[in-house]
Amino acid sequence: MAKLSEATGVPVASIKFYIRAGLLPGGELLLPNQADYGDSHVRRLRLIRGLIEVGGLTVAASKRVIDAVDSDLPLAETFEIAQQTVSDDLDPALLDPAALRRIDELLPGWKYSALNPGRLAAARVLTTFEAVGQQDELGWFTRYADAALLAAEADVDELVARSGREAQSETVIIGTVLGDALFAALRRVAQEHVSSGRFGTPPASDKSTTVNEAR
Amino acid sequence: MAKLSEATGVPVASIKFYIRAGLLPGGELLLPNQADYGDSHVRRLRLIRGLIEVGGLTVAASKRVIDAVDSDLPLAETFEIAQQTVSDDLDPALLDPAALRRIDELLPGWKYSALNPGRLAAARVLTTFEAVGQQDELGWFTRYADAALLAAEADVDELVARSGREAQSETVIIGTVLGDALFAALRRVAQEHVSSGRFGTPPASDKSTTVNEAR
Repeated sequence: MAKLSEATGVPVASIKFYIRAGLLPGGELLLPNQADYGDSHVRRLRLIRGLIEVGGLTVAASKRVIDAVDSDLPLAETFEIAQQTVSDDLDPALLDPAALRRIDELLPGWKYSALNPGRLAAARVLTTFEAVGQQDELGWFTRYADAALLAAEADVDELVARSGREAQSETVIIGTVLGDALFAALRRVAQEHVSSGRFGTPPASDKSTTVNEAR
Repeated sequence: MAKLSEATGVPVASIKFYIRAGLLPGGELLLPNQADYGDSHVRRLRLIRGLIEVGGLTVAASKRVIDAVDSDLPLAETFEIAQQTVSDDLDPALLDPAALRRIDELLPGWKYSALNPGRLAAARVLTTFEAVGQQDELGWFTRYADAALLAAEADVDELVARSGREAQSETVIIGTVLGDALFAALRRVAQEHVSSGRFGTPPASDKSTTVNEAR
């Protein structure tokens, strides 16, 4: 276990916690106080840390998606579990029906189920957007839908390139969880890039140097 | 205060808490136990709820961005505060320099500062992505960057359409916080749409009807 900790940089106490919580299988017992951990443990431990630290999942949520990877559920169900785990659990009955209808109108020709957690969450964003006095006159929602379609095409292409249920279901989990973090990160960089091009303003502070400017 | 609660659906106890926490200004005192709340209170209260419930911000983080809206800071600084508030506080010295370099290579010609929180977060995603055994052979990162650019263009167009510092800074805050939630939501819908087109699979469960199919 000390070596597993060394290989991954995860403290022994955390490793013990993950084993007790059922996130990480125990090692093969060699002696009563010595167990053998292999490459699969290293990889699984990195996945757990990625889900929790980068994806912001709770331990319980991480267990849910890891159980799905380890199961023999059809890929479509693993995908549904991943989507639900990273989404707020919204009751459609409490959402504004007009907002749900507006979201469907914004996505003409798209095929999805009425209970897709993203559909419900998008309706809630629309309701909030309007409640705070904003109006979508310039097609902000439609342009975000175009961007989301690009990302989803990239996600599905990654999936198709994998072979075997375990590799595919791992990709579903990683893509769902890390994809949110990656897009949010790149949007912040893109906002600075687009603003600087549009307004010609330097970064607000000069504690930082500008990257890529000279390319 | 009872009427403010009625108009917004926010419990009186929460309103009192927000006033004590400095998020919401108190009403104009008419009598020792009666205060006057106007439209600006209703609007502010909706913004607070949107930041906390839909954006997932803490009360402290909400206060930070609302203070920025109420300040007379230049817009570029409000923008920087918004970005930092919704991002994890990462120490660049603890990130893998090779991952930072790779992110810069993935964004050729983009102008941004070395400490842009999104640049740091993207490098962390890349490190995690590789640590869990994934390889970016199909350009997943580049395609996400293209999508992020579309969204950022939409964000800046919204900003340009507003006039006045307060309206603009509110739009910066709302766009930064709600934009993450909106994109994540629409990506989940798009994933289902693209998968169903690619694999022809029906939704995993039939507890839900398919929307938009007949359009």
